[in-house]
Amino acid sequence: MPLTAQDIYQNLEDVRRKAPLVHNITNYVAMNLSANALLAVGASPVMAHAPEEVEDMVAIASVLVINIGTLSRPWVESMLKAALQAEKKGIPIIYDPVGAGATPYRTRTIRELVQAVPPTILRGNASEIMAIAEDGAKTKGVDSAMASGAALDSARRINEQHGCVVCVSGETDYIIKKKGMAMIKNGHTLMPKVTGLGCTASALCGAFAAVNPDHFAATTAAMAVMGIAGEIAAENSLGPGSLQVQFLDILFHLSSEDIRQRLKITC
Amino acid sequence: MPLTAQDIYQNLEDVRRKAPLVHNITNYVAMNLSANALLAVGASPVMAHAPEEVEDMVAIASVLVINIGTLSRPWVESMLKAALQAEKKGIPIIYDPVGAGATPYRTRTIRELVQAVPPTILRGNASEIMAIAEDGAKTKGVDSAMASGAALDSARRINEQHGCVVCVSGETDYIIKKKGMAMIKNGHTLMPKVTGLGCTASALCGAFAAVNPDHFAATTAAMAVMGIAGEIAAENSLGPGSLQVQFLDILFHLSSEDIRQRLKITC
Amino acid sequence: MPLTAQDIYQNLEDVRRKAPLVHNITNYVAMNLSANALLAVGASPVMAHAPEEVEDMVAIASVLVINIGTLSRPWVESMLKAALQAEKKGIPIIYDPVGAGATPYRTRTIRELVQAVPPTILRGNASEIMAIAEDGAKTKGVDSAMASGAALDSARRINEQHGCVVCVSGETDYIIKKKGMAMIKNGHTLMPKVTGLGCTASALCGAFAAVNPDHFAATTAAMAVMGIAGEIAAENSLGPGSLQVQFLDILFHLSSEDIRQRLKITC
Repeated sequence: MPLTAQDIYQNLEDVRRKAPLVHNITNYVAMNLSANALLAVGASPVMAHAPEEVEDMVAIASVLVINIGTLSRPWVESMLKAALQAEKKGIPIIYDPVGAGATPYRTRTIRELVQAVPPTILRGNASEIMAIAEDGAKTKGVDSAMASGAALDSARRINEQHGCVVCVSGETDYIIKKKGMAMIKNGHTLMPKVTGLGCTASALCGAFAAVNPDHFAATTAAMAVMGIAGEIAAENSLGPGSLQVQFLDILFHLSSEDIRQRLKITC
Repeated sequence: MPLTAQDIYQNLEDVRRKAPLVHNITNYVAMNLSANALLAVGASPVMAHAPEEVEDMVAIASVLVINIGTLSRPWVESMLKAALQAEKKGIPIIYDPVGAGATPYRTRTIRELVQAVPPTILRGNASEIMAIAEDGAKTKGVDSAMASGAALDSARRINEQHGCVVCVSGETDYIIKKKGMAMIKNGHTLMPKVTGLGCTASALCGAFAAVNPDHFAATTAAMAVMGIAGEIAAENSLGPGSLQVQFLDILFHLSSEDIRQRLKITC
Repeated sequence: MPLTAQDIYQNLEDVRRKAPLVHNITNYVAMNLSANALLAVGASPVMAHAPEEVEDMVAIASVLVINIGTLSRPWVESMLKAALQAEKKGIPIIYDPVGAGATPYRTRTIRELVQAVPPTILRGNASEIMAIAEDGAKTKGVDSAMASGAALDSARRINEQHGCVVCVSGETDYIIKKKGMAMIKNGHTLMPKVTGLGCTASALCGAFAAVNPDHFAATTAAMAVMGIAGEIAAENSLGPGSLQVQFLDILFHLSSEDIRQRLKITC
């Protein structure tokens, strides 16, 4: 049975009501926007990366979001430490493989993380997802002009191997689970002109998964909310600067009606 | 004699006129907003954390602001080094104990800093202030639903022990000194939905203390300016995204009249 | 022959069309704004600082931008590593010496970088440029009240010694090459009230130089575009908060007509 606008709104309302603590180990560029988006959606963000405290922070968190956008060795060590603790505790783990495929170090790091601790949800663009699944895939920096559909086989392979929900984001967002797929066609062409919106989508996947044990549904709901808030914001914006501002405003007020009117989902 | 709107405006005007250099060792999430707020208020922000330069930066700064929001060992070492130099030089030192109580590492680190170099001003929310004063206090991440009044005893104990002005921020901001207290009831419920506004309040306390030797008055003035600018901004905002933008605009233009009309202070 | 509005617009259009990958090793404060400005201007930003990957990132990048605003030893090592690789590959290298002169560590670091790998373009404010060229020059933090013209001799000396284009930014931007100079008088007094706009100017110099082998012309074009977008934004802004937002919007839409009507250039 496909996810309805009501299901998605319910997941959003649960985030607002339960205000889950989302522990982020993310990149310097997107930290501020991700924290603000988590607050706007009703969650409670915390950023912590010191090896001395990541396990303790995981212990009080409802979900762990790991993003390799500005990775370095000490941070990767903390990511692994935090992921192991999250696995042990049984809370959802989200990976965002920013720039996988752009350098061997990124590709290797995310692959090692996935091997060591398979995530609950993996969200990336087409070239990042392909780089994890296949040797020889190429990324241009951290954005991707490739259509998200190109990574469907890679996404399915990762799902089969590691069991995680895989989301390939792009003009169409594909959300893959073992026996199913959802497609979200919301969003706006101006959104890739704002840095960190992809990272923010991963953070929202975390918030939604923290309060919804159906992680496929949670990922789908988070991506729909991102896309709908983004397209409403873009339609009211003069450019990427105002889009970022309006995105947070819209996210904060997003209504059941907004979702019902705009949702473009295929299951 | 209670602080008047005129006193507060005078402190703001002194910041604008003297443009004190505010040396920040702060967290990745709030850095940009804090720097922008310091610029908007007329101060001159600098961010520097390398052990090779923190003492030299303190040497040319008018105040040091330390914030443990995204702490790690190398940063904590620089914080201590900078604080010792600031103490030696005799400039005000502000501590913001972000997330104290959330993990043992944060609680231990801020306690060690306070022991090693007592700050001039300590500003945190209720759970953070309680975590410094009392074993067993609990924080949920880095925000706090607890009413600020709950931490008054803790604040007084810290003041007695270390001599610093203690500000417990929240719906009411309490500013504590040895024989006195001020309460500010400005601000807006939308403000906690913007990440880094607490950190920014600490940065402004630094700017105000840099030009006002009465550090209790400076802290009170800074918190009043934060609250008033925040509430004007919130009333003109559609959500947390526009609040952040308008906050900087309002701060930049804040007038004697704005403060006179809005100030809600009890001493 | 002086640079025309048409030349500048052509350089901007080339950035938009070619979307060069700009590899930034920059400071925590300006990262987000610089990435957003690069996206707004049509470039493809990437931030990467790990020693394990900087050479690989340079290998796929069209330009390298290095900014010492929040430097520390591990980052400086990566900066050098990346710069050596960029020199070997023959792509343009931009240095932004944020806070040179404020501490010996900053002055020493940027001088060592310039000695080891002379940049293609060096862009800083007057006191930073003077601190590189002369012993005993003083900076107040990372902003500079000094008129940019005061650093002309220093800029010429650096150009003679290292061959790089030197841009001294300020109320007037001076762009220096061996046998020529351009002056841009665009911009707005509100711009220095937004943190990271100088760093962003350096990032744009990178994007423009990536698609224009005449690096003097590219630097001049980038500074003109910064100044023009900034002044249009400032005229439509209520303060520094909205200036930052509008700056990105304007940059995204900047037209040939905007440049033609506003350009204030002297060669």
